[in-house]
Amino acid sequence: MSETGRTAAFSDGVLAIAVTLLVLDLRVPVRATLEGSLADALGHEWPSYAAYVTSFLVVGIIWVNHHAVFELLGRVDRIVLFLNLLLLMLVAAIPFTTSLFAEYLTAGGARARTAALVYSGVALGMSVAFAALFGYIGRHPALLAAGVDAVAVRGSILRFSVVGLALYALTMVIAVFSAPATLAAHAAIALYYCFRQTRATA
Amino acid sequence: MSETGRTAAFSDGVLAIAVTLLVLDLRVPVRATLEGSLADALGHEWPSYAAYVTSFLVVGIIWVNHHAVFELLGRVDRIVLFLNLLLLMLVAAIPFTTSLFAEYLTAGGARARTAALVYSGVALGMSVAFAALFGYIGRHPALLAAGVDAVAVRGSILRFSVVGLALYALTMVIAVFSAPATLAAHAAIALYYCFRQTRATA
Amino acid sequence: MSETGRTAAFSDGVLAIAVTLLVLDLRVPVRATLEGSLADALGHEWPSYAAYVTSFLVVGIIWVNHHAVFELLGRVDRIVLFLNLLLLMLVAAIPFTTSLFAEYLTAGGARARTAALVYSGVALGMSVAFAALFGYIGRHPALLAAGVDAVAVRGSILRFSVVGLALYALTMVIAVFSAPATLAAHAAIALYYCFRQTRATA
Amino acid sequence: MSETGRTAAFSDGVLAIAVTLLVLDLRVPVRATLEGSLADALGHEWPSYAAYVTSFLVVGIIWVNHHAVFELLGRVDRIVLFLNLLLLMLVAAIPFTTSLFAEYLTAGGARARTAALVYSGVALGMSVAFAALFGYIGRHPALLAAGVDAVAVRGSILRFSVVGLALYALTMVIAVFSAPATLAAHAAIALYYCFRQTRATA
Repeated sequence: MSETGRTAAFSDGVLAIAVTLLVLDLRVPVRATLEGSLADALGHEWPSYAAYVTSFLVVGIIWVNHHAVFELLGRVDRIVLFLNLLLLMLVAAIPFTTSLFAEYLTAGGARARTAALVYSGVALGMSVAFAALFGYIGRHPALLAAGVDAVAVRGSILRFSVVGLALYALTMVIAVFSAPATLAAHAAIALYYCFRQTRATA
Repeated sequence: MSETGRTAAFSDGVLAIAVTLLVLDLRVPVRATLEGSLADALGHEWPSYAAYVTSFLVVGIIWVNHHAVFELLGRVDRIVLFLNLLLLMLVAAIPFTTSLFAEYLTAGGARARTAALVYSGVALGMSVAFAALFGYIGRHPALLAAGVDAVAVRGSILRFSVVGLALYALTMVIAVFSAPATLAAHAAIALYYCFRQTRATA
Repeated sequence: MSETGRTAAFSDGVLAIAVTLLVLDLRVPVRATLEGSLADALGHEWPSYAAYVTSFLVVGIIWVNHHAVFELLGRVDRIVLFLNLLLLMLVAAIPFTTSLFAEYLTAGGARARTAALVYSGVALGMSVAFAALFGYIGRHPALLAAGVDAVAVRGSILRFSVVGLALYALTMVIAVFSAPATLAAHAAIALYYCFRQTRATA
Repeated sequence: MSETGRTAAFSDGVLAIAVTLLVLDLRVPVRATLEGSLADALGHEWPSYAAYVTSFLVVGIIWVNHHAVFELLGRVDRIVLFLNLLLLMLVAAIPFTTSLFAEYLTAGGARARTAALVYSGVALGMSVAFAALFGYIGRHPALLAAGVDAVAVRGSILRFSVVGLALYALTMVIAVFSAPATLAAHAAIALYYCFRQTRATA
């Protein structure tokens, strides 16, 4: 496999594992200590399920976009490997930020705000790493695969990076006011990426 | 690797991880607090082992069928990626529903029923996502690989989807009456898929 | 990727995950409750480290042998997929049997014996699944890749299966008498496979 | 896939899983027992975040170097497989040594020293396994891919192995004096590898 192919495969591995580890945040009520009905206990855990679905979509969209970036590449250099590693480091932390967010989503006050800011902060960091990776590739046309139009890449990079950064920065602002609204915003961004890009490629 | 190939590889990764994470539901009795023999303590955990084997077969069959669907595809679009992501989201939750089912399999009454309904509900959701993915592909012959017969695909989709939906809907009904019978039904469905399809391709 | 290639890749995924999950059996002494020196506390955990190394070698050897079997295959049918799934189900349980064995290795008496029997039993089950898979392939030359000598395959199957089954059956006998000797026997078998096969191919 | 390709893919799998399992060392403060602010509680966990980032870089650099070694190989023999397995066994233990190091980084005295020595010791063991693997390949030019210059490989092996062994041996010395300085040294080594090698290939 080429260096580019092996880097994409390694990244796919990390993304697949990170998304699957989200299930470890779903906790089974312990039978010996459970009071009341199991249905109530599970219903009480709704923040975990909402956070699971949202983070699954978030990582899924990252996978789709990561995929699109690596389609453009003909070769990788050490800077690409390093920026990609930074991106993966932030994605791999999502099972932690998801668990934190689910635990404090309904805690109210400063605690819910802290959890929402951490969740949005890691997502913003991801979009910064993505913009840095995408921007570096745009400035180094020698990395592009044969037949890829460098000018078109640079234009889509600008739009993509600005929109991503703006949207995730917005979730930081929302996080100051409401944790549940922050989670809803992340789910909406992920769904928006699905729809917008579907229209663009259909 | 093609977009179709990378999507299949990512899906394989999630399925392989989900099936291997099932082992985390098998708990080791703590030596310091164990009373009586270890053999008795392990025997007492039989619902965990039964649930492990059943869920391993269930995910294994999903892998085989997922595989068969992706063999037909020549390319993927955003809708396919999104429906596939929904399917993976449900499969990745199986270590949780398995652990829940094992914990409450012998609890009796409403609790065992709730656990059985959650387990069967996620399995039914999976078959709905599969039917949606399969049905979308059937209505878009442009996605099929060269040489794949669109009419034959549509026929097998109908049979496959209806049978899968009917069988998993049936486990929801069984779940109302008996949790152990529900687990046995899931194991029987997985084995049925093995045998039926073996006969069909041999 | 071909059906054979995708099955090998899925199996590789499960084996890689199972072997890496072994690390979850290595426990960090909790700082708040630790009495005495950390070095003593870690030294006290030697059964975990010995079991980690042994199981890592055991799964590593399975990977090498699994690899060798799939090199022979030109195509797979449903029976191969099913027998392979059985094999993976047993391998994926190794992080559990390893953790159990480490916890009770020094417990003495019936408890250590039970843990050693479970560990050896799953290893024996693995070698039975391997022999069944290998034997099925030997009886169906149509599955072999072009240029593979069916008679030579059948001969090596017989030797390989008989030796593997005999060695793991022997660990069941040893398990009745001594848990530490059982662990040493498993490590010795894994190292034996390394050396013997190195000589054979060098 | 070739035997070399499948070995590289299996290794990639183990490295991707080990690096992603690092997230399990990041603990969410339990809401029911949390006193004071969540921000303070998370801030108190800074050793976990520092250890996460450092170990992510360490494993990332191993992946890059492992990748570079396998680019040279045209085929693998049993000794390569065995040395590679030893290397993976040590890498797969990093989530454990990371968790241990984070737990005792600020404990001071003999406990922090023990944790730092274990962390550095496993890293040193890794560089020994790497040097053994690299050295074995250098002494067996028949394993190299067509067109790879055996003399140049031997020269870079010597430099690479000596530098790696010296740097990680140095962290053992630092570990005797200061745990936080040890962690910083590991992060610095990982970043040094990034920069130095970037310059060399740019």
